[in-house]
Amino acid sequence: MQRSHISEQYDLELSQLRDQLMEMGGLVEQQVNKACSSLVSHDIHLAEEVRDTESRLNQMEVDLDDECVGIIAKRQPTAGDLRAVVSVMKLITDLERIGDEADRIAKMAISLIEFETPVDQYASFRQMQQQVVRQLSHALDAFARLDVESALRVIEDDHDIDRAYTKLVKACVEGMQSSPTEAEHLVGLMWATRALERIGDHCKNISEYVIYQVKGKDVRHADDVNIG
Amino acid sequence: MQRSHISEQYDLELSQLRDQLMEMGGLVEQQVNKACSSLVSHDIHLAEEVRDTESRLNQMEVDLDDECVGIIAKRQPTAGDLRAVVSVMKLITDLERIGDEADRIAKMAISLIEFETPVDQYASFRQMQQQVVRQLSHALDAFARLDVESALRVIEDDHDIDRAYTKLVKACVEGMQSSPTEAEHLVGLMWATRALERIGDHCKNISEYVIYQVKGKDVRHADDVNIG
Repeated sequence: MQRSHISEQYDLELSQLRDQLMEMGGLVEQQVNKACSSLVSHDIHLAEEVRDTESRLNQMEVDLDDECVGIIAKRQPTAGDLRAVVSVMKLITDLERIGDEADRIAKMAISLIEFETPVDQYASFRQMQQQVVRQLSHALDAFARLDVESALRVIEDDHDIDRAYTKLVKACVEGMQSSPTEAEHLVGLMWATRALERIGDHCKNISEYVIYQVKGKDVRHADDVNIG
Repeated sequence: MQRSHISEQYDLELSQLRDQLMEMGGLVEQQVNKACSSLVSHDIHLAEEVRDTESRLNQMEVDLDDECVGIIAKRQPTAGDLRAVVSVMKLITDLERIGDEADRIAKMAISLIEFETPVDQYASFRQMQQQVVRQLSHALDAFARLDVESALRVIEDDHDIDRAYTKLVKACVEGMQSSPTEAEHLVGLMWATRALERIGDHCKNISEYVIYQVKGKDVRHADDVNIG
């Protein structure tokens, strides 16, 4: 009885932690969308809103991390329970880094505000943004539901993001060659594109934690994601 | 007696873990240096060596991470002891990500191999490489010796890296505007420069774990690093 009581308490704490994580995930998703919009619409207020919200995300990271350490110290979980908390700690770091990337995009949007005319490459950037945000939402969903199938799909779909990224960077370089006066603007867009690509990598990391948690197998860096 | 015996065992395990970490740190440092050299010397063999070594680093990450989880499960550390293992787990992630950045630089070196003539900006890139590698070495040293003073210095000196980065990117954009045919080459150098800047950020993270471990205070995102 005592043991199952401890375990119930632990499950409750873990489930509360997951709720807070999903809240953090939702905020991160918003930040990415707002940052990208601020860049293509040259909207300095939106960009500043993203930058102001960044500190809230940082605080969430520190608080959630503390809670995890507190749970480990108090509950001393082993095996699967320990894997669950370790996964949460890793997810927190990735969410915070995605927030950093959104902040970088917003910073870029502010520095590009003087270029009022949009460049041709904005449409592809918007498409890539949609792809990346979809990946983030799927990855968080897979984490919340411990859904290995969905997690594997996110890992697989990261190749599409990489392809979109390579294509967009190529278009930017060609743009610089044909219109050198656009160089600064296009370099800014390239940085933002790279930030999106990094966010895609974080979504892949998040999906890997799902598999680690469910299957107890560390798939990071596995050439062939085969979880058997 | 029993308690102190457990604690001695724990200290021993932790100290062995630290040794392995320092080995990983040394390898990461080598990777960064080799990757940068391969880029400025257009040395494809060196770049491929870096890319081949990347998998060894990935394996080290997975193994060390497993060891940490094993130690927590077996020893059930609390307070300072738990903070020590959590710091090690965080450091492992940063080291692996620095390795990723070195790999990105090497990938860039390979894709730039066709441009045999060096660009003017190589000298500043080399300087920035030296600054960043020095930061890495100081951060790892601070971690090994739990030296808060050195850790604070690394955090402080990150501003110099940021300044060098901004200057170098500006020089690249100017180069693109004056010589549009160099655009592709300069974009590649810019990506490598950004990778160096990111490595600087990881060194800052590592230093923050030192302070967290020693003072038990999470200084991440603190505007003013004042550990009192």
